[in-house]
Amino acid sequence: MKAIFSVANNQFKQSDIKTPSVSGYDVLVQVKSVSVNPVDVKVASTLESGNQKILGYDGVGVIKEMGEHVSGFELNDRVFFSGSNIRSGSNAEMEVIDSRIIAHAPLELSDADAASMPLTSITAWESLFEKMALIPKADANHQTILIINGAGGVGSVAIQLAKWAGLKVIATASRPETIDWVKKMGADQVINHRLDLKEQLGDEKIDLALILHSTDMYLPQLASIVAPEGIIVSIVENEHPIEIGLLKDKSISFAWEFMFTKTKYQVDVQSQGMILAEVSKLLDQKLIKSTTTKIIDGFLVDSFEKAYQLVRSNRMIGKVVIKY
Amino acid sequence: MKAIFSVANNQFKQSDIKTPSVSGYDVLVQVKSVSVNPVDVKVASTLESGNQKILGYDGVGVIKEMGEHVSGFELNDRVFFSGSNIRSGSNAEMEVIDSRIIAHAPLELSDADAASMPLTSITAWESLFEKMALIPKADANHQTILIINGAGGVGSVAIQLAKWAGLKVIATASRPETIDWVKKMGADQVINHRLDLKEQLGDEKIDLALILHSTDMYLPQLASIVAPEGIIVSIVENEHPIEIGLLKDKSISFAWEFMFTKTKYQVDVQSQGMILAEVSKLLDQKLIKSTTTKIIDGFLVDSFEKAYQLVRSNRMIGKVVIKY
Repeated sequence: MKAIFSVANNQFKQSDIKTPSVSGYDVLVQVKSVSVNPVDVKVASTLESGNQKILGYDGVGVIKEMGEHVSGFELNDRVFFSGSNIRSGSNAEMEVIDSRIIAHAPLELSDADAASMPLTSITAWESLFEKMALIPKADANHQTILIINGAGGVGSVAIQLAKWAGLKVIATASRPETIDWVKKMGADQVINHRLDLKEQLGDEKIDLALILHSTDMYLPQLASIVAPEGIIVSIVENEHPIEIGLLKDKSISFAWEFMFTKTKYQVDVQSQGMILAEVSKLLDQKLIKSTTTKIIDGFLVDSFEKAYQLVRSNRMIGKVVIKY
Repeated sequence: MKAIFSVANNQFKQSDIKTPSVSGYDVLVQVKSVSVNPVDVKVASTLESGNQKILGYDGVGVIKEMGEHVSGFELNDRVFFSGSNIRSGSNAEMEVIDSRIIAHAPLELSDADAASMPLTSITAWESLFEKMALIPKADANHQTILIINGAGGVGSVAIQLAKWAGLKVIATASRPETIDWVKKMGADQVINHRLDLKEQLGDEKIDLALILHSTDMYLPQLASIVAPEGIIVSIVENEHPIEIGLLKDKSISFAWEFMFTKTKYQVDVQSQGMILAEVSKLLDQKLIKSTTTKIIDGFLVDSFEKAYQLVRSNRMIGKVVIKY
């Protein structure tokens, strides 16, 4: 099978490698589409000379082989999945993946539209319904959430899931295109993250906040914005030690959301398959929509170069997908 | 009425002041006993010359007057309560307190035994059953909790409540007396917080951790001890910015518990009365016990000096109470 390896200096290399066989909970999937996330770009940039890695943590494909413990799936089922950062990813014709973290792909969506959803949906779902302990049910919640950087991959799904669950959603964006996009995703209000947030929010009570850009920059601001007993979740690692004491007077909680934790440490792994099954249903029922905004054709080094360049630009709205 | 004011330089001053009258949700309570907490000593040490404050956030007494919105209580009811750090406390013959944060005192306990419980019970309860989202029911939980500094006021109640709720409790202590005490409170295992925690814990899976001493010192250690998706709660303000990024790889949550948040910001205030009512029941049913270890007699400056000295020593086991 062919695989696209990420190598040092942000380069790619296509190689022929042996198609793996599977056992246990694993399935072998023929990948049809992959999407590129900021984590790919980040990991790729850290590869040292001599290292190589098959990245890609958002795939859609068809099951071609199954381990002896797999249940709930059949050969030739069309599935979607994110994956685990300690295994090889979807930048390959075939991928081995734990069947407990996959789900049937949404029937109503093309491969390219489905491929953008798994990693960001799991991240947004775990943030909202695990870390913030919201109820994962339509209109079941009535708090207000502030989403810092609403137009990226996770933001685009988080806005939609939060709206579905009944929350009032205030998202940040700064360019005309991103402001339009977060409104399209369902944000009730958009404020500019380049200006003073507190001033723009006025008396609005913010129960929850989701940081999707620069924890260093936004956590201190949120200390004065988030309501007493509120919860802040972040997916962006801080670069410097944080003045977390700012949250004490209001007894605000801070939680990290890192979607690879469960697979890396084998904790509650099957919950990610269940989350994807729910997301697949929501997509088929058109209660949320795909965030794919750009499709690049062809399983080629050139396609990956283009897609990574887009993600690296930091100006991506929604997601970029490569169709094999 | 007589009141003991804390003034600058850790001094006290007894004064006669006008007995306040009450309205709204407030009741006027004749205080019978008060206990001293680390927060009293901390606030007292920050008073500048010319400032004075009636401290004391743990009282037992009898209702002598009621505001027009008070319900659930009658004149002469015996109640216990912690209070609010933005109002005057229990270091006085009479105290005005919001009826929504008081409860009937445990019938089976003396004033001196009841007085040690409110502030620490509310703190421990909110830590376990709100911030850690454990179920406040006998034997309803099966995780393991590590309590850093088990022998202090909050630790002594937290161990008991955690055991009642079904958790496995590992507490830290370092002196023979404190080790004995935390065992008496119900700890399943005691480790020494002056030695390497991880080494002593071996393969033990720690789901939850409660920091009751030096967040600066213990949070970094707990990053490598607490299980993936675990929760760390602290009540001790950090002195320096914290490397909170250490918690990201395992998606560990960090929450502050500060029991004065609810009254200060008027958020979910009545929950503290409900917590105390539950604690009162548990005390009467002997499912948990008072943590009073030292009783000082007399509403006198001298009594407060002795009690504050004990708390300042940092060697207090359980709680010190002043009986009026």
